[in-house]
Amino acid sequence: MLIGAGNVAHHIGKRFVECGFSISYVISRNIKNANKLTEIIGGVALDSIPNPINSVDLIVISVNDSEYQGIIQKLNPDSNILVLHTSGSIALDVFDGKNFDYGVLYPFQTFSKNREVDFAKVPLFIEAKNEVIYRKIEKIACKLSEKVLNVSSLERSYIHLAAVFACNFVNHLLVEAKDILDKQNIDFSVLKPLIIETINKAMETSPFEAQTGPAIRNDENIIQKHLSLLDNEKQKELYLGISNLIIEKHSKNDKL
Amino acid sequence: MLIGAGNVAHHIGKRFVECGFSISYVISRNIKNANKLTEIIGGVALDSIPNPINSVDLIVISVNDSEYQGIIQKLNPDSNILVLHTSGSIALDVFDGKNFDYGVLYPFQTFSKNREVDFAKVPLFIEAKNEVIYRKIEKIACKLSEKVLNVSSLERSYIHLAAVFACNFVNHLLVEAKDILDKQNIDFSVLKPLIIETINKAMETSPFEAQTGPAIRNDENIIQKHLSLLDNEKQKELYLGISNLIIEKHSKNDKL
Repeated sequence: MLIGAGNVAHHIGKRFVECGFSISYVISRNIKNANKLTEIIGGVALDSIPNPINSVDLIVISVNDSEYQGIIQKLNPDSNILVLHTSGSIALDVFDGKNFDYGVLYPFQTFSKNREVDFAKVPLFIEAKNEVIYRKIEKIACKLSEKVLNVSSLERSYIHLAAVFACNFVNHLLVEAKDILDKQNIDFSVLKPLIIETINKAMETSPFEAQTGPAIRNDENIIQKHLSLLDNEKQKELYLGISNLIIEKHSKNDKL
Repeated sequence: MLIGAGNVAHHIGKRFVECGFSISYVISRNIKNANKLTEIIGGVALDSIPNPINSVDLIVISVNDSEYQGIIQKLNPDSNILVLHTSGSIALDVFDGKNFDYGVLYPFQTFSKNREVDFAKVPLFIEAKNEVIYRKIEKIACKLSEKVLNVSSLERSYIHLAAVFACNFVNHLLVEAKDILDKQNIDFSVLKPLIIETINKAMETSPFEAQTGPAIRNDENIIQKHLSLLDNEKQKELYLGISNLIIEKHSKNDKL
């Protein structure tokens, strides 16, 4: 049974089915979303959790972070049913006091419904109520992905935080870069070889070693020229803020 | 003749030789750097520009941005010699008043000496004193790369600015992400599939459409939790600054 029909529910549901699991129910307050997902992965679409919960071995909850607490509080399946949540930021203790088996299975990827993802390559971070349940979750996770790692709630929250920098914030910088090029009628695609090499270099050496650009050279002429080209105060602040962080980080290192 | 022996000079020099050009001189104030490069690409290493300049058809200048003006002012080759600079930020008018043929050939990539780059895929942005010289430079550039584009000095300066966001600043965010993971003894490589998908999604759809994360959901709980996990005031400022830019950008769009 899958609670949720958003981006993560969509991809994890598809992956469970690919790996031979069958889906009994897909539950979403928005029944249209539940219907769309059952069209792809099978099962019955419902707009609320059935009571009692029958013919189910596993419940996967994949909803907005703010909804977990409320859903889990009301959840009372048989004690032999395994319940998993998929959030990067919700600690295991959201299940405190529950007598069923529970754990976390956090797929570490950015998902959109309309984009295919090779789920076998998605790292899965897992955590469980106890060792026995951990082994049970690990067995399931290893069917879904080649990369399964044991991480605690605290580690998971730092991994999620790092992901905000490396994914959400990196994406926003690409938004800013595209804005700058759009205003000059220059196609964003000219940046592609540069971006790919930036990522490959950072991953193969280290991002600290890979740093280039006017800030690390402390090239005040270019920095001032770039600030004069930006017509937006917020972009200027962002440019100066990150440049100062780069200058500071590398001058600190020089002093060591 | 190649003036400069840094990262760009290294890669562009190698590419000229691969494409059948021969290098007469490599000039660098630091003769060790010039020697290292001549060991790879041939030619004679010198620590200053020869006077007169003999047996040379083409001079490529690839130095720090602050050095172009001084070098070009002193340069007086025969008027039939073509002189190119390779900078993203130096306008064509750095050559004003010179009676030799001149132009710009800006290779749009991040180069490090110890990393191989497929130069044939590197976009080359070119600009020239006049149409006849432009055709001459274009002919050379098309041997070096599959992607040759005509851009003005103003366009080139905006492209360089966009590259600072998409390359230098993106790389710095990876530095911050690695710092967060290092402190928890979590290997930076766990981020790789996420980062690659982030870039692919942004390039194949658009970064604006691809935005995900707590800021675009305006998820105040997660934003506050993340701020509490950061122990560094500068990181907190960066986190809040970019989050606010994401919130603002997407709320603006909703109002349209």
